[in-house]
Amino acid sequence: QDSKALLDVLVHKGILTNDEAVQISKELAKSTTATEVSTSKGKYLQKLTLSGRFQIQYAGLSTDIDGTDADPAATNHLFLRRLYVGAKAELGNGWTGNLNYDFAGSTFDAAFVQWKKSDELVLDIGFRKVPFGLEEWYTSSSNLRAIERSPGTRFFVEGNNGRRLGAGSYRTGLFLGGKTTNGLFYNVALTNPERDESAAGVTGQGSAATNTLAYWGNVGYSGKAAATTYVVSGSVGVLPDQGGKAIGTGSDLTVYNAFSEITNGPFDLQLEYFASKNDNGRAAGRDAHSWAFSVQPAYKVTDRLELVGRYTYVGSDGRGLTTSDLIRSAPSGGTMNELTEWFGGLNVYLRGNDVKWQIGYIHGESRDLVNGAGNVVKGTGKATTDGVRSMMQLNF
Amino acid sequence: QDSKALLDVLVHKGILTNDEAVQISKELAKSTTATEVSTSKGKYLQKLTLSGRFQIQYAGLSTDIDGTDADPAATNHLFLRRLYVGAKAELGNGWTGNLNYDFAGSTFDAAFVQWKKSDELVLDIGFRKVPFGLEEWYTSSSNLRAIERSPGTRFFVEGNNGRRLGAGSYRTGLFLGGKTTNGLFYNVALTNPERDESAAGVTGQGSAATNTLAYWGNVGYSGKAAATTYVVSGSVGVLPDQGGKAIGTGSDLTVYNAFSEITNGPFDLQLEYFASKNDNGRAAGRDAHSWAFSVQPAYKVTDRLELVGRYTYVGSDGRGLTTSDLIRSAPSGGTMNELTEWFGGLNVYLRGNDVKWQIGYIHGESRDLVNGAGNVVKGTGKATTDGVRSMMQLNF
Amino acid sequence: QDSKALLDVLVHKGILTNDEAVQISKELAKSTTATEVSTSKGKYLQKLTLSGRFQIQYAGLSTDIDGTDADPAATNHLFLRRLYVGAKAELGNGWTGNLNYDFAGSTFDAAFVQWKKSDELVLDIGFRKVPFGLEEWYTSSSNLRAIERSPGTRFFVEGNNGRRLGAGSYRTGLFLGGKTTNGLFYNVALTNPERDESAAGVTGQGSAATNTLAYWGNVGYSGKAAATTYVVSGSVGVLPDQGGKAIGTGSDLTVYNAFSEITNGPFDLQLEYFASKNDNGRAAGRDAHSWAFSVQPAYKVTDRLELVGRYTYVGSDGRGLTTSDLIRSAPSGGTMNELTEWFGGLNVYLRGNDVKWQIGYIHGESRDLVNGAGNVVKGTGKATTDGVRSMMQLNF
Repeated sequence: QDSKALLDVLVHKGILTNDEAVQISKELAKSTTATEVSTSKGKYLQKLTLSGRFQIQYAGLSTDIDGTDADPAATNHLFLRRLYVGAKAELGNGWTGNLNYDFAGSTFDAAFVQWKKSDELVLDIGFRKVPFGLEEWYTSSSNLRAIERSPGTRFFVEGNNGRRLGAGSYRTGLFLGGKTTNGLFYNVALTNPERDESAAGVTGQGSAATNTLAYWGNVGYSGKAAATTYVVSGSVGVLPDQGGKAIGTGSDLTVYNAFSEITNGPFDLQLEYFASKNDNGRAAGRDAHSWAFSVQPAYKVTDRLELVGRYTYVGSDGRGLTTSDLIRSAPSGGTMNELTEWFGGLNVYLRGNDVKWQIGYIHGESRDLVNGAGNVVKGTGKATTDGVRSMMQLNF
Repeated sequence: QDSKALLDVLVHKGILTNDEAVQISKELAKSTTATEVSTSKGKYLQKLTLSGRFQIQYAGLSTDIDGTDADPAATNHLFLRRLYVGAKAELGNGWTGNLNYDFAGSTFDAAFVQWKKSDELVLDIGFRKVPFGLEEWYTSSSNLRAIERSPGTRFFVEGNNGRRLGAGSYRTGLFLGGKTTNGLFYNVALTNPERDESAAGVTGQGSAATNTLAYWGNVGYSGKAAATTYVVSGSVGVLPDQGGKAIGTGSDLTVYNAFSEITNGPFDLQLEYFASKNDNGRAAGRDAHSWAFSVQPAYKVTDRLELVGRYTYVGSDGRGLTTSDLIRSAPSGGTMNELTEWFGGLNVYLRGNDVKWQIGYIHGESRDLVNGAGNVVKGTGKATTDGVRSMMQLNF
Repeated sequence: QDSKALLDVLVHKGILTNDEAVQISKELAKSTTATEVSTSKGKYLQKLTLSGRFQIQYAGLSTDIDGTDADPAATNHLFLRRLYVGAKAELGNGWTGNLNYDFAGSTFDAAFVQWKKSDELVLDIGFRKVPFGLEEWYTSSSNLRAIERSPGTRFFVEGNNGRRLGAGSYRTGLFLGGKTTNGLFYNVALTNPERDESAAGVTGQGSAATNTLAYWGNVGYSGKAAATTYVVSGSVGVLPDQGGKAIGTGSDLTVYNAFSEITNGPFDLQLEYFASKNDNGRAAGRDAHSWAFSVQPAYKVTDRLELVGRYTYVGSDGRGLTTSDLIRSAPSGGTMNELTEWFGGLNVYLRGNDVKWQIGYIHGESRDLVNGAGNVVKGTGKATTDGVRSMMQLNF
């Protein structure tokens, strides 16, 4: 299209003769192999950008419950972990529309209108992740060195099932943030209280249990000292009426997160800490102060090969957790009080991060039975999850 | 791609030397920031066009039922109202494929093959809206000045729930229409009787209750007199076996619509009227002649600011209606016979209609209890809905 | 974008003056009617290609059960059969990401990462069809001459419902295949045992019943003799623990397929044969050796008109089948032992295969009642399905 218009002009300007232009057109036609894709003739649209992410995962995980032969069926399956297609529309004056959809699962990853006044002041209206957590918010799902997020992240941000807190990740609301040229960044958000990225969730109008908004705040700093780059960040989330054993019963939930990432050449180190105050989160009249931390060193042996390890501890403080809650695709080993996980893996960068193969070994242990009344039976009860996780990624 | 071919030709034609072309290529490579998107090498595809619509809404609505303190929980929520992505493929000789999908809700807005012989004769095969209603059919969801369609439209076209009629909007079928150069337009359609835009609905093969086709007809005229443009239109829908309190029980339903829109500079006025004959639609042996009308004046104060008001009346004629049936996201105030709604709002056009912020106040009242036998208790029963609705739109 | 850069270079090279370039830019701006679509600035992405398929179908089918007036409700409905949108991302060194999504039904058709070392060695990781069946695997859904696949294909590959085998079509796994320059081709695959193309299915982690992998193998040859092109192929699928009346109960299933397609000018002939060994597939202690075959001649009367016929036989060997199992959209005529189907149709190629209208008549007969114990009552029980199927297709 462009070439045709250019040719017309070149003829008009006397640089090409008519005959030459006709012949060039024919030769161009031969070399054009496909029709280009365009957009509606809008007055404001300046650019439409498409992107995508394919992640295919294999999980082979078994859980052994101490003192019984009746262990749950092991997982041995291949599945689509993420199948993102995204679009970003730029309409000028700082306005953009941002969509990222996960066809695997039919869920949203992002769907918001953004107004960017400057780097220091960016307003997002719609559906995205709240500013909480190194792995969940600060790190893209295409850059998770240990394939899946840690049990600590999962306990705090995955959907509330009476044990996990559901306090992070996807929300619909208003998000304001920015960063200064000297490395300081901040984020605040006002959102629906519940996490629900399904079609029913993003279009839903809430219920008595989810009609109280939630508040989020974050400050951080990223900088460089000699060959070392680092980031430190702290976040808090206040979720009125989302605490207790069941939401919408008047109990409040507050969650805290701090993290740091330090990179020096081939070395990368991630440190993350979570804490919470969950009113009546253990049982009626008994609050739960669940907490977690995780340490993840990684080393790039070559441009293509990377080694990674991760240790995570989660203490539920009598609220309870299971291996299937916190280790993705793992069979459940029953409700216990705390969990530790070791992960060791290898990442192969076949076309940079855009085509990557990952494989790792997981060893997780949950300990100390929690009963319905929120009582912990110290030293009784243990479940061990072992196995392999592997993932193929293609990103564009 | 095009530039490379053009350069080759320019060298071949002696306009550039080989060295110049190589250097130009390098400089072009530097300035190219992204890969272009193309299509399969099909013989017939001439053009593929992408489009999109983001609508994020906030609804804060409460319903007060007269004579009780046990009012339903108020709505106070943010949600994705529409998240459309569309594609139009042009294959020549008047053939196009048209898709518009709503990721929020996982539903279809349009999915049809079109053959356009001329402006006067256009045939659509597939899924789209039937030619019925000013707000529902004639007006794009990106151009609704009062954010949501009126209670009248909702009573007639939203899914049949034993009260609303479900007689309009999305259907799969054959659609024939056109307009002449003198302003006359017409539309006829033969469709499945049921409205169901979900994945299960568009692929479904019907049941005994939905295996009778429905018929639609419309004529209208749009013209201009001095500075005034106007449109008038009348439509009818005949839905055998879709009447009664439950569909598929032998009762027939016929619906009528008339509308006019008049625009003069900054003024816009929309008038709409609905009527129906619903055999046994009130109760066994008692037909319902539900009807509705709505008036909506709007005034553009500046290029960026618009004021809008709307008044709607819906009379169910003993069939029954609720505030949640007819005011989107409102809590239900029980089954009554009639409803009025006042809407007053402000629209801010940030980037024309492509980036728009809307906010409005809603006051609705339903009156006169309807019991199970279809009897109206005049003067008894009243529910009042009040609150705010706001929406952010980005369109391309 | 490209033109602007080119103009800059042409000015720099002295071929155009500054004034000329500015004027050309203005003229180009006028002629540009739409914004182009591009991709993120990735280092590796070389090309992103979009594709699509619209299929709108009408089914008018009734089933007459012998010896009763209580026949099931007939089907008389229009629906979206397929609404595919696809994307292929090429990242170099033989790596591609391939997605084909069916918006009608919210299911996947393909989602895999491919590494193509050469024509002889292609590795797919992810979700696609296993190499089993002429109509199901070897033929694109855009090229089915008889509109829907045969009852034989449906018995073997459609979801296992206690009668059909669910042994073919969509699986997540590893797929290796290739073809040599002399016409030989091969395919092997290691996959999850179950077919489930829904969002829940592709992301699911399996259960005790689906945690045993399945194995697939295929060899074939395609060649040309004078004006005749032909292909012959044989496949086998081994599905441990997927046999019996219910899966996951220790019974194994093995399926076999052989086909040939012969084309000479306007003539096309398709022959297909299926066989199976289903341990305890008839009843406890009684294996089922269900089998089927189908013959489909077609003749292109002109470039635009094609006639097609198809005959299919399915013998369930006491496992049972229904008309609704094997004739898409047909009402069920009860569980019988065998089924034959005759199809006669006309295909109209309006824009080659890219815009096509198909219509055909179907006559199917199921015979010989099968009871719960897997016993066949020879000569007792018969159901006849008759009716019309029509489909509009647009493909790009």
